[in-house]
Amino acid sequence: MASDLRPPEHQVAGHRASADKLGPLVDGEGLFYKPLQAGERGEHEAAFYAAFTAHPAVPPRVRGAFFPRFHGTRLLPAPASPGGAPYPHIVLDDLLAGLQSPCVADVKIGACTWPPRSPDPYVAKCLAKDRETTSALLGFRVSGVRVVDARDGDVWRPDRSELKGMDAAGVHRVLRRYVSTCGGSGDGLDCALAAAVYGGEGGVLAQLRELKAWFEVQTLYHFYSASILFGYDANAAAAAAASSSSAPGGVRVKLVDFAHVDDGEGVIDHNFLGGLCSLIKFIGDIVAEVTEKASNIVYLQMSHIKRHQMERKSQVFERGNFTELPVT
Amino acid sequence: MASDLRPPEHQVAGHRASADKLGPLVDGEGLFYKPLQAGERGEHEAAFYAAFTAHPAVPPRVRGAFFPRFHGTRLLPAPASPGGAPYPHIVLDDLLAGLQSPCVADVKIGACTWPPRSPDPYVAKCLAKDRETTSALLGFRVSGVRVVDARDGDVWRPDRSELKGMDAAGVHRVLRRYVSTCGGSGDGLDCALAAAVYGGEGGVLAQLRELKAWFEVQTLYHFYSASILFGYDANAAAAAAASSSSAPGGVRVKLVDFAHVDDGEGVIDHNFLGGLCSLIKFIGDIVAEVTEKASNIVYLQMSHIKRHQMERKSQVFERGNFTELPVT
Repeated sequence: MASDLRPPEHQVAGHRASADKLGPLVDGEGLFYKPLQAGERGEHEAAFYAAFTAHPAVPPRVRGAFFPRFHGTRLLPAPASPGGAPYPHIVLDDLLAGLQSPCVADVKIGACTWPPRSPDPYVAKCLAKDRETTSALLGFRVSGVRVVDARDGDVWRPDRSELKGMDAAGVHRVLRRYVSTCGGSGDGLDCALAAAVYGGEGGVLAQLRELKAWFEVQTLYHFYSASILFGYDANAAAAAAASSSSAPGGVRVKLVDFAHVDDGEGVIDHNFLGGLCSLIKFIGDIVAEVTEKASNIVYLQMSHIKRHQMERKSQVFERGNFTELPVT
Repeated sequence: MASDLRPPEHQVAGHRASADKLGPLVDGEGLFYKPLQAGERGEHEAAFYAAFTAHPAVPPRVRGAFFPRFHGTRLLPAPASPGGAPYPHIVLDDLLAGLQSPCVADVKIGACTWPPRSPDPYVAKCLAKDRETTSALLGFRVSGVRVVDARDGDVWRPDRSELKGMDAAGVHRVLRRYVSTCGGSGDGLDCALAAAVYGGEGGVLAQLRELKAWFEVQTLYHFYSASILFGYDANAAAAAAASSSSAPGGVRVKLVDFAHVDDGEGVIDHNFLGGLCSLIKFIGDIVAEVTEKASNIVYLQMSHIKRHQMERKSQVFERGNFTELPVT
């Protein structure tokens, strides 16, 4: 079975596996193998998954909806080691399994990416990166993106230096680009998939809000330096958008990367929660923008008389007088 | 009129005015005079108040409920300057005016107390303090407290070094102490005023939640290093608690200290919001604790038969079967 393992085609962040380097692998049958990170990090992440999976205070709905399922650890032959000495991997659900043309975004959450009790040099290193990127300013940074155009299969995937140098306007743009079918370099972002992917019942925004409700009360873990991974299928989203249905299904919102998770010790994860609320505001603004545009189109299609009635009503509302006007 | 000015009796944080030192003053008629802070801070704070007061996008309800009213700046004779050369003061509502025995808490909000674009030495200084105190860990720190015992007028007021060295358990304790009428050094905290001060319609918790709703959407300002000031009257709260009324009225929740406010630039204040949510969790837990205790007392006062019926019902609920049982 190990011979079927290969680097995931759609990886957007982290080290990539190659003939002589460790990196994540997928088996094409729904499993994802993440090599244990060096030092204590890998052990720490595996221990987190084991504890989290069994924790009685984690609501099953939260665990199932927002975290990859953990299948233990497994030794796999390591590349470039003499005789392929085995190396331990964390085995997880492949979060993009079943998506034909996966569009992926990896968003690292939190203004601060270091646990408060970290040693000073580590704090200094992370802090510098948090201030160079948008983490300190926005409470999150985009670490990776991959967008497939459903019409021609073209893939857009900015490189890491481009993402690192991004300011708030750049982040707003990349979050719009993630749900657009045309990627002109000017203002050519149509946000055609925003209602289908971000909006609606199973959309990103609804899922982020559900996650937020848990973060307002959970005091078990502090998720420093963890990411939220978004995934959707370009074809399914395009079909949903074409039929004005807002639920293509299969829009994924998952937490990943737990090498720096800290004990909550009875305190909520205010750092993650703050960043999550900031991300919700960014995405909510994009949804509001396209919803407003859509209702403007409906408005323009209305008859002149209906529009006149609406305008009179809205003037009355603005004056703070809520009496209904008789239809004139 | 200036001759009536005096240092506020109930000040819990910041420099205290004396014969040869600048510090805040009150006139006993509802106004509070805050000397402009040195360097650019004072100017910055005065400019914030002027802009905030006039900003059309700030909801009047938020401005009125959660911020001191700004009455401009005023030159007052400065102590210890030859001939009393005048010094500029920011004139604000005295937030504790009208309270006979004010109980006050000053809570500095945010895991991070420095605006992201601050110069490195300032960041280093603030960061060290955020890590030494509970800011980084809890998302807030208690900067000052004053509690009056309604029975004997005794005042409890921990000194600053005590507050600075406080851990999470200490913060939980001081927030319980703030609403207790007995302050034994052991576990002698009765939280007798928790329902009256923290709970109920006009209580601290309801006010913090309203403030939170604004912080989830406002992108005008980032309130680095600002505090939330709580205030209530010991006598009014004791009377309300005695009559089991949960609304003594006049429970105050106000933002103060705006020398480090930054432009929001279209991004929510995730740092303040995260800390605010953490504080809400701490205070919500205290309210839940006393509410549970109260309902246990009611439960114990019930007849045996009633209790038996309730237990059967709750077992049924736990099994996930929501059919009402017939009363046996």
